[in-house]
Formats: sequence, C-alpha cells, structure tokens
Amino acid sequence: MRAGSHSSSSVPDGTRQAGTVTRAVEASLARIAARDPELLAWKYIDPDRVRRLASERDSLPEARRGPLHGMLIGVKDNFDTSDMPTGYGSPIYEGNRPSADAAAVALLKSSGAVIVGKTVSTEFAGWPPAVTRNPRDPSRTPGGSSSGSAAAVADGMVTAALGTQTLGSVIRPSSYCGVVGFKPTFGRINRAGVKPLAESLDTIGIIARSVTDADRVYRALSSAPATNFTAQAPKLAFCRGPNWHLADDDARQAIEHFIEALRAAGLSVGEIDVSTLEPLAAAAKLIQDFELWRGLAFERTRHFDQLSPAFQAGVRAAETLTFDDYNRAQRLGRESRRRFPDLLAGHDAILSLSATGAAPAGLGSTGDPVMNSTWTLLHVPCVTIPVLQGRSGLPIGLQVIAPRYADDVALRVAHWLHEFHGRAQRAPAEAGAPPNPA
Amino acid sequence: MRAGSHSSSSVPDGTRQAGTVTRAVEASLARIAARDPELLAWKYIDPDRVRRLASERDSLPEARRGPLHGMLIGVKDNFDTSDMPTGYGSPIYEGNRPSADAAAVALLKSSGAVIVGKTVSTEFAGWPPAVTRNPRDPSRTPGGSSSGSAAAVADGMVTAALGTQTLGSVIRPSSYCGVVGFKPTFGRINRAGVKPLAESLDTIGIIARSVTDADRVYRALSSAPATNFTAQAPKLAFCRGPNWHLADDDARQAIEHFIEALRAAGLSVGEIDVSTLEPLAAAAKLIQDFELWRGLAFERTRHFDQLSPAFQAGVRAAETLTFDDYNRAQRLGRESRRRFPDLLAGHDAILSLSATGAAPAGLGSTGDPVMNSTWTLLHVPCVTIPVLQGRSGLPIGLQVIAPRYADDVALRVAHWLHEFHGRAQRAPAEAGAPPNPA
Repeated sequence: MRAGSHSSSSVPDGTRQAGTVTRAVEASLARIAARDPELLAWKYIDPDRVRRLASERDSLPEARRGPLHGMLIGVKDNFDTSDMPTGYGSPIYEGNRPSADAAAVALLKSSGAVIVGKTVSTEFAGWPPAVTRNPRDPSRTPGGSSSGSAAAVADGMVTAALGTQTLGSVIRPSSYCGVVGFKPTFGRINRAGVKPLAESLDTIGIIARSVTDADRVYRALSSAPATNFTAQAPKLAFCRGPNWHLADDDARQAIEHFIEALRAAGLSVGEIDVSTLEPLAAAAKLIQDFELWRGLAFERTRHFDQLSPAFQAGVRAAETLTFDDYNRAQRLGRESRRRFPDLLAGHDAILSLSATGAAPAGLGSTGDPVMNSTWTLLHVPCVTIPVLQGRSGLPIGLQVIAPRYADDVALRVAHWLHEFHGRAQRAPAEAGAPPNPA
Repeated sequence: MRAGSHSSSSVPDGTRQAGTVTRAVEASLARIAARDPELLAWKYIDPDRVRRLASERDSLPEARRGPLHGMLIGVKDNFDTSDMPTGYGSPIYEGNRPSADAAAVALLKSSGAVIVGKTVSTEFAGWPPAVTRNPRDPSRTPGGSSSGSAAAVADGMVTAALGTQTLGSVIRPSSYCGVVGFKPTFGRINRAGVKPLAESLDTIGIIARSVTDADRVYRALSSAPATNFTAQAPKLAFCRGPNWHLADDDARQAIEHFIEALRAAGLSVGEIDVSTLEPLAAAAKLIQDFELWRGLAFERTRHFDQLSPAFQAGVRAAETLTFDDYNRAQRLGRESRRRFPDLLAGHDAILSLSATGAAPAGLGSTGDPVMNSTWTLLHVPCVTIPVLQGRSGLPIGLQVIAPRYADDVALRVAHWLHEFHGRAQRAPAEAGAPPNPA
C-alpha cells in the first residue's frame, strides 16, 4: 500500500507555470520523499493522484474555490476513503477498499482541500504502538493513536491532518510532536465512515501548526460560524490535575513557569480544584474497553489471531467488564458533565498539561492518555498548543479546556495564548508588559 | 441481489433427520418463497447459505450453543454484513460488499442466531418509501424505514429482526404491522457498521412477535442482565400527546378504550400532561436533517443524481439549516432529557400511541413519525405492543415509554400489558377481575 509513496520525487514538466496548489503539493511530496522513510508517518500516498487533484484545484475558477481551497490535509487511516485503501491500523484490513468517503473526508474535499494521503493509525486507533517516529526526535514515539497525523503536521509535510480521540489520541500526540491539536466538543464533527473504537467517546479532531488553521478546518467540518479571535485577555484558571501526581517534574515545572509568566505579564490567572474529577480517567478507560469489546465484535470473533498480542490482551480484559460496571462509569460521566460548568467558576477556560511529560523514549508505547481522558469523557473542547518545553528541549503541550459547546472559546483562548507565547519568545524583554489586559 | 431468494423452495434430502434449526429454516424459507413475491420484505436471501448455517448450528454440541441458538433473525439492509451485499436502500450501493459485519450482526452470530437475510430498508433509512407491503393488508404501507424487518416478522418469516430508528423507524412500522417493536435507550446497542443517518439520534431496535423474544435479542446485544418479568402491576400514566391532535379519531378512541379496560380491571392509571414536549418533534426532525446533510456528504456531493427525488428535496431543504438552528434544537433535547424524570411523577412508564393511526393506505408514504420522534430525541426506551385495533380491524400499537436507562422497566411493563391483553382476549368475562393489583 505504500507503493510509489517515496519513489517519485521528480518535478513534473510545467512546474514553472504550475498553479499555487500544484507548487504546494510538489513541496509536500518532496518533503515526504525526503523525510518519511525515517518517520513513517504515511500509510498510503499516491503522488500521481495528489498531483492530479492539485491540477484540478488550480484550474478551478476563483468563484468555485472552496473555503479550504488547496489546503493540504492528511487523513488518519481509520477514516474511510473511496479513492485510497483504508486499513484501520490492522492487518485484517490490509488493502481494504471502502465504497465511500467518510463524511469528514467528503466535506473537506467539497471545501476545496487536497487530501494528500492516509496517515498511520495505531491498531483500530487503540493503544498498541504503530511504526511512526517523532519528528522532533526519531528515537521517540510521536504518541498515538493519531501517530501519523501528528508527525506529518509536525514535520511540515501537510498543513493539517484529521485524527480521532477516544481517550487522548489527538491532544497527546500533538503535545509530543509540538503542534496544535484540537478535540472539539463531542458530536461537533460527523463521524459517519470513521471506524468506531468506542462510539460514546470517539471524537474527530484536527492537528495543525496554528490555531487558525485548525479553526478553518473545524469550521468546514462543523459549519460553525467564524471564531472571533479577539485580542481581549481571557479569564483563565490553572488546574493541577486531575492526575497531577502522574505528570513528571519536568512537565509540572514547565506549566508552573508558563502560568508565572502570564501573571508576570499582568494577567490574573485563577486556580481551581478539580480533584472531584479524579475518578473519571478510569471510568473513560472502562467505557472504552466495554464498548470496543462490542464494537469490534466481528474482528474479535472472526480474526482474533490477526490482532496484536497487546490488543488481544486488552480484549480479554474487556470481556470481564459487566453491564453494571459500564452503567456506573457512564453515570459518573453524565453527572460530571452536568456539574462541570460550576467547576469553572466563571472562568472562560482551564489550563492544564496536555500530557504527563515530553514524548517518552522509544517506540514501545504511545504514552499515557491520563491527562486527556477526563476531558474526553466530559465531552468538552480541548486545544493543545506547543508553548511549553521540557529540560530536554522537547515540546510539551499546554491544554486549554472550555465548557461543552464553547469550542469557539477554546479556540480563541488557545490562539490568544499562542500569540502571547510568540510575543514573549520574540521579545523576552517585553514579556513583562501587560498583554491587552481585560 | 434477490437472485435465488424465491426460486428454491424444494426440501433438501435428509430433512427427515434434520435438526431443529434446519427444520425451522426450511419453514422460514418456505414461508418466504410463498409470501415474499407479494410482500417484498427481503432485499437479499441466499437459501443455500441459510441452510448451511442451520446445519452448522445443528451440529454444535449442546455446550457450545449460544443464548440465541438457532433463532432466525432478519437484518435491515443498513447493517453491514460480510457475507451478504449491503445496499443501504440506495442504488448507489447496489452490490456493495462490506468487509466486515456490523457489531450487532457479529454479536447475534456469536450468540448462535441464524441471520436469514437482509430486509428492505428505505433509502438510507430515511423517508422515501420502499417496495415492501404490509402483511396485514398488502395495499398498505408497512411503515418505514425498517419496512422489511417489520413485514418479515409480522408475516412469520423470522422470529425477530433488527431495525434502526432515527425518528420513528422501529416503533411505527411495528405498530402498522401488528408486532412488538423495541427501541432501547440511546447508546444501549453498539452501532459500529450501521450506516448513519443522523448519529445523535440513530438507535438500533428490535422487532419481534413477543416482548420476551425482543428481550432475548436485546440482552445478547447489550449484555444487560435478565429482565425480571414480574407479575406485579405497574404504575402507569396515560398521556395524550405530544401531538395528540395529529392522531386520528380511530387511534385516539382505541387507546382511550384500552386505558378504560385497564381501569375497569382495577388498575390505577394516572394521567400526565406532556404539552411541554410539544416542540421536540420538530427539533428531532431538524437535528436529523442537519446531521444527514453532513453524514451523507459523500453521497450528496458525488452521487446526487442517484438519490431519489424525495431524498434530493430533503437534502436541499437541509442545506438551509444553520449551526445555530442545530444547536438550539440540541439544547432543547438536552434540557428536556434532564427534566423528563420529573415529568413521570413517580410512574414506572407512560402509555401513548405508537403511531397516528393504523397503516395508511397505499405505498406512497411510510406514514408520520410524529408520535415517536419526541421519545427518540429524549433517548428514552420505547416498546410498542399490538394491543389496539382500528375500526378497519388493522392493528395500532400501544407505546410504552420508560425513563432513560430503564430499558428493563419498559420491557417488563410492555410484557405485563401484552399478557393482560391476552387474558382479556381469551376470557372477556374475566377482564373485570383485577390483574394482580399492586
């Protein structure tokens, strides 16, 4: 399925007169040809197909160009595509050819985007690691399960990529790879044609290098109106946790320093106690496991020996979960969602860590989703921005969390903080000046 | 795709020594061969495949037989099947061969059921009518969108069938065809591999001839513990509406008479006012339309001219709905779900009509889902039982509605009422005796 993906990097005739999209596609294909043999972010690319699409886009008259005209986007291999094989990260589906595009893919295409190829997913978007390496340090995991999407964006191969998050599969790899990741409110982006892992948690997310690019893709998919990227300073609350004790010292210090910098710049940052949310991560895991045992009933009953040993072990453990266990966990999720707005105590958004630390060494694990699964179960929008750094120099994400349905708030706050960070980086001396105080 | 479905009705050699499942399958195939040329309930049946499956089941040692051993089940053609074509009720997918079974299908198979074939679905489980006729009166619609499933069960071709309900697609056809239909709480049965129409509403349901058969299938799919079919009389509330004014006189009188009969038998039946739920049916329709415009983006953008004129019109109308319209409708749904337990005022379940009347004449419409869509949006479990009758002698369903997650209560109450009705039918003279007063 990778045939042709790295063999052809020759520039076709006529590039000199080529349109903007074709030039962008050639740059993308060249980057992929140069870098992907090491990073293995892509499951499938057909350069001829991508060039043909680019040429079609370039020949479109201005009036027929969509809002994402020519944007280069990678799609995780758990989204069905009618024109590319779709393997769901499993050998069971090697060479599988879906009869339709997933809804999100069709919406991107009809908005003018160029789908560059399929990015590597872990097995059924679950926990067993895939082959992809972290562009910031190829000896490390890029995280998962949207491994290829995060790596492809971080390496500059595409402008944005689609991923999915069941526990922490968009925010965590984005954090490890040093890019922006956005998991909208549950239900915001239609999931038709995405292979379910756990349907009450699965959420389509967007990985990009800027909040504004993530926002553009989000609006094309959700039909949400334009986000108001105001310069007005947000009302923020810092929260240690839940599961703060599982974060490493490096990550804890990085976020504490960032909060101090915000305060030093004149912003008032509150603090809130989210210890009541402590049991949610385990509940989310239980819900995932109960649902995947049923949702993957065909694969489990018919192709068990083609599941990886790690997935087999997960399936066996999931079999012991009862209907009552599941209902208790779902009830906790519902009640916590109901109480969550009060927890925010008037703040626009919560700031927390996007992962327990920088990308772990090695490719034997995609890391721990424990800083994400609470928010996934709460259905709340989360954006990670690459503004923290561990002592090793590797990126750590700052997670911006807003109430359900306040996706625009999450994006606005994340954009504001990303800009603040940019200003501070460019002019450390000015960082003490108040950043557009409210 | 119908090849072979009606051509072969000859009894194979060895039937005399055939096992129980084989004998049941032969009876089913004979019934289908005799009746389906008129009723057109089936989209696909391969008698050889079904006979082979029956023989496999019969040869299983007792210890390896599942809880649904040998149960004959039809599956609506919007569920993916790996061993039968899956057309989603649309010519776009004629001959489509999915690579996997839907989760529900795989769970039925691993529970020992025999999937007899695919039943006719309306186009993408939506509103345009399909070819199926009502077994109670073939000049009438069986309802939709689970048209074939309801007709096949009503005609005695299979013991049970799977359907899906987005507005009223399980309860209404069951009502029109005079069978039991069960739409569980939203989320109870895993939807992986079911073609989405509107993912925040789509619910898998079960059509059967008895509540206990529906319950058996439900437990195999949901892992719910055994329902306690107690003889204790339930605490019931009758509700006129919402949308009572849309029900015809015939149906209104039929349910009023049934409520009187319950009271005459000594049961106290309360009444509750659900007029605050009046706006929900329109909200459910709006949510369906907004979501299908996105969920069927591939079909809409790539195969528009293969959609029926009625579906095309629906898609065009849906295009005008805004993100704000959608959010308002979803918010109403959420708030109403939160308030619903108070509305019940201590009753176990609500009784209402399952449809606005008996099956409408002709095949030009599948009827009005307005007596169902409110409850679908509320996510509450509904069971229809064929205990009412219109003046024409055609069946009308009584709908039993319980709070979210009280699926066992909905089933228990429906069973109790079905038994009560059976006793009253058998011995009208005794109907005055109190039915196990609480």
